[in-house]
Amino acid sequence: MHINDQAFHTIWQDASGLIQVIDQRSLPHTFQTLALTSTAETVHAIADMVVRGAPLIGVTAAFGLYLASTEAPTASNPEVYLQAAADKLKAARPTAVNLAWAVDQGLELLQATAPELWESKALEFANKLKQADIESSEAMGRYGLSLLEDLHAKNPDRPINILTHCNAGWLATIDWGTATAPIYFAHRKGIPIHVWVDETRPRNQGASLTAFELGQEGIPHTVIADNTGGHLMQHGQVDLVITGTDRTTATGDVANKIGTYLKALAAKDNGVPFYVAAPSSSIDFSLQDGVLEIPIETRDPDEVRYIQGWANGELTKVRLTPENSPALNYGFDVTPARLVSGLITERGVCKASESGLRSLFPEQFS
Amino acid sequence: MHINDQAFHTIWQDASGLIQVIDQRSLPHTFQTLALTSTAETVHAIADMVVRGAPLIGVTAAFGLYLASTEAPTASNPEVYLQAAADKLKAARPTAVNLAWAVDQGLELLQATAPELWESKALEFANKLKQADIESSEAMGRYGLSLLEDLHAKNPDRPINILTHCNAGWLATIDWGTATAPIYFAHRKGIPIHVWVDETRPRNQGASLTAFELGQEGIPHTVIADNTGGHLMQHGQVDLVITGTDRTTATGDVANKIGTYLKALAAKDNGVPFYVAAPSSSIDFSLQDGVLEIPIETRDPDEVRYIQGWANGELTKVRLTPENSPALNYGFDVTPARLVSGLITERGVCKASESGLRSLFPEQFS
Repeated sequence: MHINDQAFHTIWQDASGLIQVIDQRSLPHTFQTLALTSTAETVHAIADMVVRGAPLIGVTAAFGLYLASTEAPTASNPEVYLQAAADKLKAARPTAVNLAWAVDQGLELLQATAPELWESKALEFANKLKQADIESSEAMGRYGLSLLEDLHAKNPDRPINILTHCNAGWLATIDWGTATAPIYFAHRKGIPIHVWVDETRPRNQGASLTAFELGQEGIPHTVIADNTGGHLMQHGQVDLVITGTDRTTATGDVANKIGTYLKALAAKDNGVPFYVAAPSSSIDFSLQDGVLEIPIETRDPDEVRYIQGWANGELTKVRLTPENSPALNYGFDVTPARLVSGLITERGVCKASESGLRSLFPEQFS
Repeated sequence: MHINDQAFHTIWQDASGLIQVIDQRSLPHTFQTLALTSTAETVHAIADMVVRGAPLIGVTAAFGLYLASTEAPTASNPEVYLQAAADKLKAARPTAVNLAWAVDQGLELLQATAPELWESKALEFANKLKQADIESSEAMGRYGLSLLEDLHAKNPDRPINILTHCNAGWLATIDWGTATAPIYFAHRKGIPIHVWVDETRPRNQGASLTAFELGQEGIPHTVIADNTGGHLMQHGQVDLVITGTDRTTATGDVANKIGTYLKALAAKDNGVPFYVAAPSSSIDFSLQDGVLEIPIETRDPDEVRYIQGWANGELTKVRLTPENSPALNYGFDVTPARLVSGLITERGVCKASESGLRSLFPEQFS
């Protein structure tokens, strides 16, 4: 997708062979790229959220394994070095499922490969993972597009109003995004779209990342406080909600950024369709009850007590609460399947239920 | 209530006769009082939100009328001066119902009074209004207390967890508050309470004012992002929600700070009682359908795009969104009566319905 009218992926190998990423910590205020030149720098980039979003983290870790494969030959024991590098990459953000999966797959591949071929094999693996993620986003874009085409056919004279929460955009993936892929596909087809962007406290990924990427693609959008969506739905100002997911159960329960559940309740109460873009990599077919079984991460309370923004030409952190007031910071909540109209996967759109998922992923239920 | 262990009202006449208020713009970061020495300063204090909260605004305007009565004798036409002062006070925040009511009542009283008695009559009226507001809060505190006593009897071994949204605290009134009055009453009776404080974007009255006043009273509380309440309720961490109201219909629909509706939906979905502290001054007995009939104020979008906090020892404003991303800022939403467990009024607790309100305020339905 585009930044300053130039096409970008979130991670790429440049002409000189360096692995480059977009530094997402300073968006939307300044646009900077960063070269990852070692395993250590890659671990830091994942841990410090230079890159974030489960799909992007997975691909970044694969490129980290490639960097490790270039470092291993000079180590006293290359095999031990590679294993240690893989462990460090996996520990950078322990809760992101794609991260461990990508590192384990890559490591297994290299362990079955002669050391002199590690470098080329690791690079090939990383690029393959990257390409697979792009294709997954494109497939969700195509399937989600039909939902937007239907809404447009019913309302040909006005933009389709879509509400989204957090950033399930291309900045969380390689290109297109998950929840945003249908939006970008519809926009390129000339379907008029307007997006309500939940700012998504406490980390404000909506106000900073989703608003940024939609603006860069020229898609009309409006930032709102997370409190606003219910009122908009009561007054017919939302045609469709699309969010991402961090983990989906085999029964269609969806763990996503904290506050998603509240929007799903409002959508149900007002008859607004509520869809979740759920690539199969986010579906945990071993789980039945999301509220009971999915562990919810608590994060640093200072993410609630403080907020970062732009003042006098620099990133500035301000305190919002009394100095002595404690805060609690849950990262995610679970939206029960009964509130989800459908899941948009790379194999098609299905009901948020075991039978719905079984129809698209029969091999997971055998 | 207490600030730095000293008892305060939000507005008072000091020993030298000056009208003093707490400057709420810089809370919770610095505590300052401000003397209102003229009608013009009072208009400014209301318009610029030095004081806020419908009950407090009404009482402040009454003291403004008293200041006008001290200025009128030196005007070329005192009656015209008084009328003009009243108009300016009413225009300071046109949507606050209590403001117009207080000014109209006071003006009517003075117009029926000999000019040489204006000053004493106006001061008496302002102090009477102030006292009536305190008594209204105390009555809601008493009636709401019984709800908390019931919850405590059922769970004697742990604190009662109450969630509140925005600031319907003593800082919005003269003393005790509306939604907070039962909390303060229970705390003084030794009932262990813990309050979940919604930060309440975009203006963050929860994180700045509610957290501040609870902290000053020594009441255990935790600030949360507005997105968090649903997750807490799913996991049994909320026993009761109490909010305030800006306008209540004769059928029990409640207009309150934006986001209240989302919490009411979550409460309903999880069987958590949802109560609204609704003094009769907030009830508009002429309205039937809150969603259709209550006009919702849109405020400056920059309240969403920017936020104020404390950095390097001063109030600092930072931008949260891309420079060119628009925002929309609805101030309130409407919670339908079907989601409200009950209204706590100064005459008792009733169902959020016409029959409920009729049982307490029969004279309004004749």
